[in-house]
Amino acid sequence: MGGDHGAAVVIPGAELSQQRHPDAEFLLFGDRSVVEPLLATRPALKAAAKFIHTDVAVAMDAKPSQALRQGRWKSSMWLAIDAVKRGEADVAISAGNTGALMAMAKFHLKTMPGIDRPAIAARWPTVRGESIVLDLGASIGADAQHLVNLAVMGSAMARVLLSLERPKVGLLNIGVEEVKGLEQVREAGRILREAKVPFLDYTGFVEGDAIGQGLVDVVVTEGFTGNVALKAAEGTARQIAKYLRGAMSQSVWSKLGYFLARGAFRSVAAKMDPSKANGGVFLGLNGIVIKSHGHTDPEGFANAVDIGYDMVRQSLLEKIRRTLMLNQSEAPRVAGGTVS
Amino acid sequence: MGGDHGAAVVIPGAELSQQRHPDAEFLLFGDRSVVEPLLATRPALKAAAKFIHTDVAVAMDAKPSQALRQGRWKSSMWLAIDAVKRGEADVAISAGNTGALMAMAKFHLKTMPGIDRPAIAARWPTVRGESIVLDLGASIGADAQHLVNLAVMGSAMARVLLSLERPKVGLLNIGVEEVKGLEQVREAGRILREAKVPFLDYTGFVEGDAIGQGLVDVVVTEGFTGNVALKAAEGTARQIAKYLRGAMSQSVWSKLGYFLARGAFRSVAAKMDPSKANGGVFLGLNGIVIKSHGHTDPEGFANAVDIGYDMVRQSLLEKIRRTLMLNQSEAPRVAGGTVS
Repeated sequence: MGGDHGAAVVIPGAELSQQRHPDAEFLLFGDRSVVEPLLATRPALKAAAKFIHTDVAVAMDAKPSQALRQGRWKSSMWLAIDAVKRGEADVAISAGNTGALMAMAKFHLKTMPGIDRPAIAARWPTVRGESIVLDLGASIGADAQHLVNLAVMGSAMARVLLSLERPKVGLLNIGVEEVKGLEQVREAGRILREAKVPFLDYTGFVEGDAIGQGLVDVVVTEGFTGNVALKAAEGTARQIAKYLRGAMSQSVWSKLGYFLARGAFRSVAAKMDPSKANGGVFLGLNGIVIKSHGHTDPEGFANAVDIGYDMVRQSLLEKIRRTLMLNQSEAPRVAGGTVS
Repeated sequence: MGGDHGAAVVIPGAELSQQRHPDAEFLLFGDRSVVEPLLATRPALKAAAKFIHTDVAVAMDAKPSQALRQGRWKSSMWLAIDAVKRGEADVAISAGNTGALMAMAKFHLKTMPGIDRPAIAARWPTVRGESIVLDLGASIGADAQHLVNLAVMGSAMARVLLSLERPKVGLLNIGVEEVKGLEQVREAGRILREAKVPFLDYTGFVEGDAIGQGLVDVVVTEGFTGNVALKAAEGTARQIAKYLRGAMSQSVWSKLGYFLARGAFRSVAAKMDPSKANGGVFLGLNGIVIKSHGHTDPEGFANAVDIGYDMVRQSLLEKIRRTLMLNQSEAPRVAGGTVS
């Protein structure tokens, strides 16, 4: 029921994803009067789906605490998360209220052993392909251990989604010599360098412009900075698109040029298309929850579902758990080694 | 002597700026064997310039503490700052080592009354024109009062450089409801809203994508986030430029299209041209110091000089001082009003 268009985007999106993954099964939670007409015209999806009616939906502008108080046990959002909790679903996907989704997911699924706070991670298009960036705003601030946990979770996600054996991981930092970055970022770098986590290749600090250049596969930062970086990049892409549209309609020659090169323009637009990288993954919980952009289209929502499918098929949670356990059993020895 | 190309960019850059501002006078500090041949072929600049020889130059990779120890009293960078200190120059401009320049400027010029830490501010191209963004990395972290000081200094800079009576100021924040931003950002917002500073129109929080949209004239954030946002945006611009170059050479049609629309492409490139917005302004010191990008060209360096010229002509420091004094005399009353 969430997002700018609710079931009108979610149901066609689920249908697209189901065509790509015929073995996927769907539990759909929402209002009968809206969902059933959309399902009626989609027999293949209907056959693969179970629909559960609820007339409670979390409002897009509800505060997380309010959503938790009013929507617990009965809202479509809660019921989807609850299906993951009870093992009936492998992954929950919502285009709804991000804060409410995170609050409910954290409250109900709880964080993994060794993880204090969940994170939001997403794919980021780069000149070399794609990278994973986290945390995009699940929490503000991070001590060194939280940054290390983000590196572990992000690299597990990169292994699954980008099919990498040992993803290159960088810690986001700033290059001005005088200040040389936060103490906790330096400390996290030290831990990662010395811990030699087997599934993660720690390459050092990276600056903001390294993200789009794809210098590393996983970019780690705390949630405030990550959110600002993501939105600054999105804003810049929109800004350039606007400049280009304006410039290409300036003269007859530029209009003709645009017409001849329209295939090239389309290929660039596709590379920067936010719906392609749609799907913020909540990491660090006992269950997979994915937040689709609220203003996405069916193709974008289908991409969020695809991400969930891939992560379940390739045992993301198990990979995170195993690396965290390795990392935790290593940690005391490493710390001792440093002190001596 | 600083930057990737040293005097070979600085001298032609000074010449360009001098052509635009015939009343400007230059003090040039550097190595005689490099600078004098460049001056010899530029009689107009030579007539408006005084050259002071020094054979000490701060290395681009020197640590700030090291530069301060080894370059104080004698390096070209120090001598330029010292000229501002002694009132012989109105502004110092360098393409050299940022950390060293900030360390020397802070050590020698000292911060203004009421300002604990200086900031770096720059112009940022937007779809509506230009905005001022600060702090871009002079210091990490900020309490509410430092954010308020940044707002005051940034709006003084916007009044001068963007010719605005009462610039709109926004505090950079993240929109995820659950976390709703840092306590100090909220507190700074409260102070700015209640203080009603006469030369500043505080409009509330803005997210990262609002910068490029030009929703406000001044974007305020602490140095770590500001630096990451700037570089993430620059990286995205380079990324899209690379996509476009690749796409336009794909086929005969796209090549022809590019040829016909090349004027339009050039106008977009000019809008995003980093040399146009070149010049990080150190704010909060008793004197104006400007950092040009190290890898800029003569036109970019000239732009950094132009910024300095405008700020001196329009009494930037006096405007900051006056607003700070207003703000400080107002503060106790405002705080009392809030507590009651």
